[in-house]
Amino acid sequence: MRKIHVIGIGAGDPDQLTLQAVKAMRGTDVFFLLDKGEVKSDLTRLRRDILDAHLPEGSYRVVAARDPERDRRAGGAAYSPAVEDWRTARAGIYERLISEEVAEDGTGAFLVWGDPSLYDSTLGILQEVLAKGAVEFTYDVVPGISSVSALVARHRTGLNRVARPVQITTGRRLAEGLPEGVDDVVVMLDAHQAFREYAGEEIDIYWGAYIGTPDEILVSGPLAEAGPEIERVRAEARERKGWIMDTYLLRRHPRGE
Amino acid sequence: MRKIHVIGIGAGDPDQLTLQAVKAMRGTDVFFLLDKGEVKSDLTRLRRDILDAHLPEGSYRVVAARDPERDRRAGGAAYSPAVEDWRTARAGIYERLISEEVAEDGTGAFLVWGDPSLYDSTLGILQEVLAKGAVEFTYDVVPGISSVSALVARHRTGLNRVARPVQITTGRRLAEGLPEGVDDVVVMLDAHQAFREYAGEEIDIYWGAYIGTPDEILVSGPLAEAGPEIERVRAEARERKGWIMDTYLLRRHPRGE
Repeated sequence: MRKIHVIGIGAGDPDQLTLQAVKAMRGTDVFFLLDKGEVKSDLTRLRRDILDAHLPEGSYRVVAARDPERDRRAGGAAYSPAVEDWRTARAGIYERLISEEVAEDGTGAFLVWGDPSLYDSTLGILQEVLAKGAVEFTYDVVPGISSVSALVARHRTGLNRVARPVQITTGRRLAEGLPEGVDDVVVMLDAHQAFREYAGEEIDIYWGAYIGTPDEILVSGPLAEAGPEIERVRAEARERKGWIMDTYLLRRHPRGE
Repeated sequence: MRKIHVIGIGAGDPDQLTLQAVKAMRGTDVFFLLDKGEVKSDLTRLRRDILDAHLPEGSYRVVAARDPERDRRAGGAAYSPAVEDWRTARAGIYERLISEEVAEDGTGAFLVWGDPSLYDSTLGILQEVLAKGAVEFTYDVVPGISSVSALVARHRTGLNRVARPVQITTGRRLAEGLPEGVDDVVVMLDAHQAFREYAGEEIDIYWGAYIGTPDEILVSGPLAEAGPEIERVRAEARERKGWIMDTYLLRRHPRGE
């Protein structure tokens, strides 16, 4: 039976690999590197560097593939035909990778940035491939340091305050309003700096881009002051590198403090 | 200047240490193991095993100390005198550990289960000690695999569903109601199985105890069926081992599915 590891490799710092991840990588014959269409050669190189650093030369193969991008012009409906096409296309690619590139008693691995449990689609796609029934395999998940953990570690702060909750959400949802009943909100996948809408509120922001890499940028402070600074450095970095991966924590001041 | 590392060591599996954590440990002269009053010798032994596995014998010292427990009889008010006394007592212990056990050019480390950013007080206490000004030091944070990441990895599921938020909260807050606007809720620090109140709803639970250790127990399924099973195995395990550390994810069925 084919075996598949889904390995979280941390947010960008090669030292944020776990020993468990290194062991799983050493037992892998073929690695799948999937990227969106955008130019992210830095990210491909980072993963190849990680493999080179931990595995004997010639002990493994790498197959790079293109993760089809969703056609966002079709609008935001969760089950529109465009979304179905995209899901089907993706499942087809993963199915072919597993059936054609992994030997019947072999082991393949998907390397996932951060932690496979947060805003990553690999697990969902594998379940879909299994449900189709055209190829059989077992799989396991190796947790990784998420960009969320890496962000707050660099800012030397916690995610939650004592006995209080924290919510992890997307830029799109933040644009619809701050969530109810929670004062600590982590925002991922925010291409439009949704934090701008809250500049008038008593909120601190802890922001970071390219966390754990030599390009890391950190900015924190009251949103009214740090917000414009983040917009400036973010635009500059995105222009310079051609892509950006950033995350932030919004911390609302508690009432009465 | 004294240096302090706050090192996340993962949820219990020694292989969930990161390479960064191992490096930080190798640069440490003295490790502080803090435990509550309860008998948790298993946890102390696990951490000593981790140190033994990665550090040359005789290259480090270990200082065990007792983290004073908060007097919960005084009630839940966040700033009651009992809480203030407890905070002051704790800061005093940390201050003495750092000033008396770490040489002026030395390095100390606090080993924290999971990730220091989630429901852990170490960072807050260090900031308090610095604010008092009696001892000077610099500190950094090494992120770890949280019990949350470890839990969902073992269940091979994600924390959030596509483009949706996830909230991490406490048992006490869950007992007050499911949070608004979020269908994926991770619950920590729940001594009273607050999930019982939701047995009548369309919710799946993914539960785990002692995750990543040889004693690991996992139960998942619809809450109505899995809930009683969890109560049973939890009580049994707690009786057998004298303590339990457990976490769970509640996943509400989306409307219309």
